[in-house]
Amino acid sequence: MAEHTIKAFDDEIDRLRGLIAEMGGRAEAAIENAMLALQRQDTGLAAEVVAEDKRIDAIEAEVEKLVVEIIALRAPMANDLRDVIAALKIVGVVERIGDYAKNIAKRVPLIATNQRTLEPISLLPSMGQVAGEMVHDALNAFAARDADLAVAVIERDTVVDDFYNSVFRTLVTFMVENPKTISECAHLLFVAKNIERIGDHATNVAEMVYYAATGHTLPDRDRGTTQLED
Amino acid sequence: MAEHTIKAFDDEIDRLRGLIAEMGGRAEAAIENAMLALQRQDTGLAAEVVAEDKRIDAIEAEVEKLVVEIIALRAPMANDLRDVIAALKIVGVVERIGDYAKNIAKRVPLIATNQRTLEPISLLPSMGQVAGEMVHDALNAFAARDADLAVAVIERDTVVDDFYNSVFRTLVTFMVENPKTISECAHLLFVAKNIERIGDHATNVAEMVYYAATGHTLPDRDRGTTQLED
Repeated sequence: MAEHTIKAFDDEIDRLRGLIAEMGGRAEAAIENAMLALQRQDTGLAAEVVAEDKRIDAIEAEVEKLVVEIIALRAPMANDLRDVIAALKIVGVVERIGDYAKNIAKRVPLIATNQRTLEPISLLPSMGQVAGEMVHDALNAFAARDADLAVAVIERDTVVDDFYNSVFRTLVTFMVENPKTISECAHLLFVAKNIERIGDHATNVAEMVYYAATGHTLPDRDRGTTQLED
Repeated sequence: MAEHTIKAFDDEIDRLRGLIAEMGGRAEAAIENAMLALQRQDTGLAAEVVAEDKRIDAIEAEVEKLVVEIIALRAPMANDLRDVIAALKIVGVVERIGDYAKNIAKRVPLIATNQRTLEPISLLPSMGQVAGEMVHDALNAFAARDADLAVAVIERDTVVDDFYNSVFRTLVTFMVENPKTISECAHLLFVAKNIERIGDHATNVAEMVYYAATGHTLPDRDRGTTQLED
């Protein structure tokens, strides 16, 4: 490439990375606010999370447009091309993480309408925090191409999975003992599942980062037969 | 492009479309078999669905590799490039549809261990059939670039959503009346949610097809505030 073309390409890649970082920051905030809204039964905050998700979707669309432009105008070579395609995949995952946060927020009014304290809610904030940190670290690992940080994210996925299994059992027991709460607890089951899926998607990003940085996949990452990936 | 290059490009696009069609066929079969396994409490068939999902994932990886090759070797122009990128997005969606079918299959043993007849199971096969047909038609619409068929798919999404809401209410009522079935009904809730998500993803494919064929998005498709997209 001519020097000015390289400069333009680098600028575009910087813009791409900036958009991904912004999108990630918004997804993290969405998770945190959704969990806060759930805890405080704050339907106003929940509505904000739902509204903010449109911005995350808009950034994804912007990234897609930019990727097509970069490929069409710069015709990047093998490695650069793979990076650009990887960016496309990562924003797809972050968009889904944003959706999960939005889904949690959407369930808040369905749970908040009831004045009773739902004891099992108390389990969810810590689970949400671990998942949110995984998203944060996975995107930092992407920005810094840091394979070690990616591995740390991947290893934390079992924490979220264990949380989920514990929440599932607790909720089922609570429903048996408090049949009047069954409808709300069903919504909480989906909230827990959404958090578990956020952890899975952070793990997916981390796996992509690890592969891009090392050229290898991690062993023992076939979760296909043990886990429910809804 | 030189004539032999155009021929090679067309061959590659044909291979791409062939892979997507194969992937779609496998995803449809997975949905059908997962629902059959659930109805018949057939854990062997369920295990087959889980195992087969690896093939769907492998085809997705093959498509990704092919897309990178096509872009790198053929440097397709704007419209062709957008088509190739769209193919990448569509296989991502089909892969997720396969995952949902796998997740349904994975829950079969958790439900089948119990000898009791779970009445709400009877609601799910028709729901699964509508969702499966939506996937089938969405991929046909993609293959034929058929905007009308895409619209028909999109319109059917409310049928699946109505099914889901009905199943949710029926299951909650059943749990209240039969507290001993709560754990299995919780799994059925997730099965219903997975089917509902399959319908959503078929709709996503149809929306992409409609946009590619007409250059427009459909009005009234902002489901953002009414639906839970877990």
